[in-house]
Amino acid sequence: MIGFLVLQLHFTAYSQKTTIDLASQVNPLIGTQNMGHTFPGATVPFGMVQLSPETGNEPMFIDGKYNKEVYRYCSGYQYDDSTIFGFSHTHFSGTGHSDLGDFLVMPTTGLLILEPGETNESGGGYFSMFSHDNETAMPGYYQVGLSTYGINAELTSTERVGFHQYTFPQSDSAHILLDFMANIYNYDDKNVWTFVRVENDTLITGYRQTSGWARTRTLYFAMVFSKPVESYGHKKYDNSPYKGFWRKFDETENFPEMAGRKIRAYFNFKTEEGEKIQIKFALSAVSTEGALKNLKAEIPGWNFDQVKVQARQKWNRQLDKIQVKTTTEAQRETFYTALYHTMLSPVVFEDVDGNYRGLDDNIHQSDGFTNYTIFSLWDTYRALHPLFNLIEPSRNADMIKSMLAHYDQSVHHMLPVWSHYANENWCMIGYHAVSVLADAAAKGNTSFDMQHALEAAKSTSQVAYFDGLGDYMKFGFVPEDKSASSVSKTLEYAYDDWCIAQLASFSGDSLMASMYLKRSANYNHVFNHTSRFMQPRLSDGSWKKPFDPLQTHDQGFIEGNAWNYGLYVPQQVDSLVSMMGGKATFSTHLDSLFTMHLDDSYFEQTEDITRDGIIGNYVHGNEPGHHIAYLYNWTNEPWKTQARVRMIMETMYGAAPDGLCGNDDAGQMSAWYIFSALGFYPVCPGSAEYALGSPLVKEAVIHFENGNTLNIKAKHQSSENVYVKEVYFNGMELQSSFINHFELMKGGELLFIMSPNPDYGGR
Amino acid sequence: MIGFLVLQLHFTAYSQKTTIDLASQVNPLIGTQNMGHTFPGATVPFGMVQLSPETGNEPMFIDGKYNKEVYRYCSGYQYDDSTIFGFSHTHFSGTGHSDLGDFLVMPTTGLLILEPGETNESGGGYFSMFSHDNETAMPGYYQVGLSTYGINAELTSTERVGFHQYTFPQSDSAHILLDFMANIYNYDDKNVWTFVRVENDTLITGYRQTSGWARTRTLYFAMVFSKPVESYGHKKYDNSPYKGFWRKFDETENFPEMAGRKIRAYFNFKTEEGEKIQIKFALSAVSTEGALKNLKAEIPGWNFDQVKVQARQKWNRQLDKIQVKTTTEAQRETFYTALYHTMLSPVVFEDVDGNYRGLDDNIHQSDGFTNYTIFSLWDTYRALHPLFNLIEPSRNADMIKSMLAHYDQSVHHMLPVWSHYANENWCMIGYHAVSVLADAAAKGNTSFDMQHALEAAKSTSQVAYFDGLGDYMKFGFVPEDKSASSVSKTLEYAYDDWCIAQLASFSGDSLMASMYLKRSANYNHVFNHTSRFMQPRLSDGSWKKPFDPLQTHDQGFIEGNAWNYGLYVPQQVDSLVSMMGGKATFSTHLDSLFTMHLDDSYFEQTEDITRDGIIGNYVHGNEPGHHIAYLYNWTNEPWKTQARVRMIMETMYGAAPDGLCGNDDAGQMSAWYIFSALGFYPVCPGSAEYALGSPLVKEAVIHFENGNTLNIKAKHQSSENVYVKEVYFNGMELQSSFINHFELMKGGELLFIMSPNPDYGGR
Repeated sequence: MIGFLVLQLHFTAYSQKTTIDLASQVNPLIGTQNMGHTFPGATVPFGMVQLSPETGNEPMFIDGKYNKEVYRYCSGYQYDDSTIFGFSHTHFSGTGHSDLGDFLVMPTTGLLILEPGETNESGGGYFSMFSHDNETAMPGYYQVGLSTYGINAELTSTERVGFHQYTFPQSDSAHILLDFMANIYNYDDKNVWTFVRVENDTLITGYRQTSGWARTRTLYFAMVFSKPVESYGHKKYDNSPYKGFWRKFDETENFPEMAGRKIRAYFNFKTEEGEKIQIKFALSAVSTEGALKNLKAEIPGWNFDQVKVQARQKWNRQLDKIQVKTTTEAQRETFYTALYHTMLSPVVFEDVDGNYRGLDDNIHQSDGFTNYTIFSLWDTYRALHPLFNLIEPSRNADMIKSMLAHYDQSVHHMLPVWSHYANENWCMIGYHAVSVLADAAAKGNTSFDMQHALEAAKSTSQVAYFDGLGDYMKFGFVPEDKSASSVSKTLEYAYDDWCIAQLASFSGDSLMASMYLKRSANYNHVFNHTSRFMQPRLSDGSWKKPFDPLQTHDQGFIEGNAWNYGLYVPQQVDSLVSMMGGKATFSTHLDSLFTMHLDDSYFEQTEDITRDGIIGNYVHGNEPGHHIAYLYNWTNEPWKTQARVRMIMETMYGAAPDGLCGNDDAGQMSAWYIFSALGFYPVCPGSAEYALGSPLVKEAVIHFENGNTLNIKAKHQSSENVYVKEVYFNGMELQSSFINHFELMKGGELLFIMSPNPDYGGR
Repeated sequence: MIGFLVLQLHFTAYSQKTTIDLASQVNPLIGTQNMGHTFPGATVPFGMVQLSPETGNEPMFIDGKYNKEVYRYCSGYQYDDSTIFGFSHTHFSGTGHSDLGDFLVMPTTGLLILEPGETNESGGGYFSMFSHDNETAMPGYYQVGLSTYGINAELTSTERVGFHQYTFPQSDSAHILLDFMANIYNYDDKNVWTFVRVENDTLITGYRQTSGWARTRTLYFAMVFSKPVESYGHKKYDNSPYKGFWRKFDETENFPEMAGRKIRAYFNFKTEEGEKIQIKFALSAVSTEGALKNLKAEIPGWNFDQVKVQARQKWNRQLDKIQVKTTTEAQRETFYTALYHTMLSPVVFEDVDGNYRGLDDNIHQSDGFTNYTIFSLWDTYRALHPLFNLIEPSRNADMIKSMLAHYDQSVHHMLPVWSHYANENWCMIGYHAVSVLADAAAKGNTSFDMQHALEAAKSTSQVAYFDGLGDYMKFGFVPEDKSASSVSKTLEYAYDDWCIAQLASFSGDSLMASMYLKRSANYNHVFNHTSRFMQPRLSDGSWKKPFDPLQTHDQGFIEGNAWNYGLYVPQQVDSLVSMMGGKATFSTHLDSLFTMHLDDSYFEQTEDITRDGIIGNYVHGNEPGHHIAYLYNWTNEPWKTQARVRMIMETMYGAAPDGLCGNDDAGQMSAWYIFSALGFYPVCPGSAEYALGSPLVKEAVIHFENGNTLNIKAKHQSSENVYVKEVYFNGMELQSSFINHFELMKGGELLFIMSPNPDYGGR
């Protein structure tokens, strides 16, 4: 007891002084190798600007066509590369689909080369070689030596403004390239239009419109150099050079207006040895006027180090929300990097004056909220938004208000499915925004308009042309002959219906609640009581044949199979357990799932799943199974949950560039880790109940927005002691494997007594 | 004297009742044949929406490439055609370069055909045949029978909203096509992006971005049908169909979102015999939200006839500014159609709430003025803007404020050269916005900020990279070896410099005035005292050889030659006359100009000049010579001016589709006619002096904005009595061939005594 008090004082000291530099525990390079798809660049929490290097070891072009593998380069950076092409300002973190990569800046010296590179030979492009030995990645700061040019590149950022600092050698021909043709998700037709003005010898403004994953996306910028440009110009790579200048101008050099489909611009300088050229690069989705406002508001001066320190302070304030002690340094680094990765999206998507571009391409004013974008909802409704409800409900409420604004602006009258930068990209299935709404409502985070939310959820769930939804409403399931991945869709629609029922219930609309509760039982319609698997069904009611519960293609599932994806009934796990034969049988099914051997053929052909992220037929590297390890809690063997989640934490995460077993998916993989490391997990968002697991931390202190503090302690914590013998909340022993959100939010102490042996009694 | 009083009462009755339907005197078909480049469609004075048919007798496409001759179809319509492709909402009036043609709507029946036509055979495209027998063109209203489909098309308009009314036959498959690929100045790459939302079963919104003559131009729309759409869809003609919909949607049919580079959309209806489908189609350069605002503000209801009547009332109010009596009905029709044509551009370019898109592509608010666009300034500074200073100075001041806003937004820090729709297209030479500024200042129309105007003029005149201007400043003339058309440029820069000197003088900046006065004498530097011609000079000071004063190519002139364009020193005609050998010699030069015979080779190769518009080597069909007929006033033979201007009015203008001898050039040709018909002309805009000619009207009453009324009377007027024997202003006989603007603005009576014989005495 005395020890506990000391510990508390220790934590209190931390939080009051906020001198603790938790940012030092973060390694942004984690997840940059293989398929983690994170980026190492400079950004602030939830900042729109994510200023990060673009790498690539293959030639960027072959025969004038882009060659970059779009999946591998979702975040622009691969740790194994030794070639760097420059630094662009927007990135997804951890996604399984790519886009963005706006406004690539590359400093060079010597001969002006405007093309990124048809070959990897020196001089074959503007790229530089780089080495991890001369590279630093920290929250809010990135540094790399561009060895080809002898330039040291440093980056930092605010929410809307990237700050570059390039230290040049002596050169009469130093260049800053601004490649408007560079993109992530590059292909030849992505560039729709580019418009640039050289306002004066230090200020450049403009915009670029692209049609990538976001079909109609325009991003504006204002770029300021710390010293005047000596000369500048651009080259067009369109087939259709503009003929409107009446032979008056050579528009390619020192002409302050550039426009076209495909443009690369350059700015020339003379530099002394060791001279720093700084660039402030502001973004806006509204206008160049907006970008200039952002620039002036966020970085009025030229003090790079100050902005860098401020960025780190922002991270420390964020990371300080959860203070942990772990058994190993690696666990601590893994934890704080995961926490860092949960704060890279959604991102702020409005100008400093509250103007933002809506889904209808009109400019709106955020009224009483901050507008966010990048909603990878099929991933993030599971644990990321629940994590926000725990550690920053106000921000999550703003995200919900952003989703409601999206709904208001949607010509489909739908909440976002997967949206970014004022575009709906429709990725994956379901309409899990309703889960985010329901989870916030379930957890009392209800500063948004509940009636509006309910209307939006209802409207979304009734758009007949959306992805088999009309048939789902008609048949009570999605028939596979009408719409592929029909079982996944049926299961997820059913869960979403349950979320809407919860929302209706919280809003006091019992009629609607019961209607949607009925719909939420539709998972029954795809459960084959003979095979005891969820199976695809045809519109005549028959089961699709042949059926292979391990096969991932054409068997009714997307990125999964009946064995794993068929376990998706988070809203009624009890019912699922009994359908599948009761607790013992269900537990055996889970055991088999984790231990079976899969032929390579089963998963190699499946998107977003790699051998790295697999345990048997359990796929941690992808989302549909993220709740599965916790399902033992619904059997008599919750100790198996404890063992599995510890195993997953230890094997699927690590403090190294290859530390993520699959896409971080906009923070969902990391949010799973944060919850699991703290000892509980939101198996069914939309309910206030967490399933208990096995904490990885030794101690944790969570500072809630309500002012309360939750201390989590794992007594006898060790790598062997993965089992939970007893759990106490504020001194009372818990009698089940679940704990309620509202209890936790009261603060106090959640004490796990760890043990090397399972507690076969269960709770 | 008694007669005059009666006449006055008669006119007063007109203006008080305003029941006179002067619109009935206008024939919008004048100028639609050959090269007048006017359009016959429905518009209101200075309205942004100019809703007019697109015709073409050649196949629209050959091998999938646009085939339409861009010069011939500047306004979209050619009288000789019998094939119509639909109705689009934006047009230039009378220009010599094309663009616009936004949002083509075409009603059809039967088989859905989405392509305009690869052949002219029936069914080969969505086009219809039409006949002038079933066509009506009136101010504010256009009607045509679409014989291929049995549809009667009617159009009317407000400033920002086009109103379509299509009377269908009975049809189960009636269609309204919305061809986003249709353009004027069509070429394959013009379409940059199209974005469309079917908001509900009657409302469509969206925008189209094009890169035509305006390089970066976006126009938004909101379109409402009077009855719900049965079904709809679109077809893409891109090479790169969007892959982002995740195989969820058939986006081609009844999917409410369309986007891409090349799109044609259709809306299906069922119609009864004689059923009218109406469309309100609002434009905005700001946003779809802006277009909707415009729609609701300007046409809240569905009363087509009411909007049609209101449009006509607007025209009557405008045309009523000048009431004339002429000798013939044809003259009257020619006069009022010319007056009509002076009111088709510039056009209003802001939403009803004052928001407009600036040259910097940001959205601005017009503060204290109405923003206008389409400034064909090389043409219109000559007589159109002076005409506005006479009959609607307030509107002209707003145009000047629009130009100053352009300057404020210009990355070049220049006033407009030839600008439209928030783009500078740089057409032709000089920077004659300064003339418009100076003319307004000279005529006391100074509600704009004079210091701002002076700063803008000064800045514009010092942009060294602009079209030989740097060399002009360095050498005192534009050297032909540095910049082609060097004499034309030198002469026009010199005139513009004089205008700036006037502006400076009016502003009390005598230092600047004298500096620019000095520059304004630069015409001297290209006058060869040996040949007595303006000649191109090289940067070493020598005259370019060989020199042919009749040749229009490579002899230093643009769209002209030394014989005619060399007479361009409006600011110092006296000086020109004496340089060229004195009054008699100069007069002989003019005589020769009008009577010499030119080989076809001289003008057929010259842009914008056709045999129709030529009298000897005088070119009325193009602008550089528009002042020339009045130059006899500076000799001892002003009677030759009188004869020539009457001859030009009678031969170069007429009340028929081929009634314009060349491009109307945004109203300049028509403004020349209005002034000349009234008996005076602004030879040197920027001065308050008009040169007298020979009025064509018998009587005219001009209602000035200052409340004064000017009565013009031509006593003994007839087609033979083209000479002016005496001129009286308010009873005082004029002793010169000039009259001052401020005198005229006092109102009263300007009395010409006409005669069949020249007054050899001169004035």
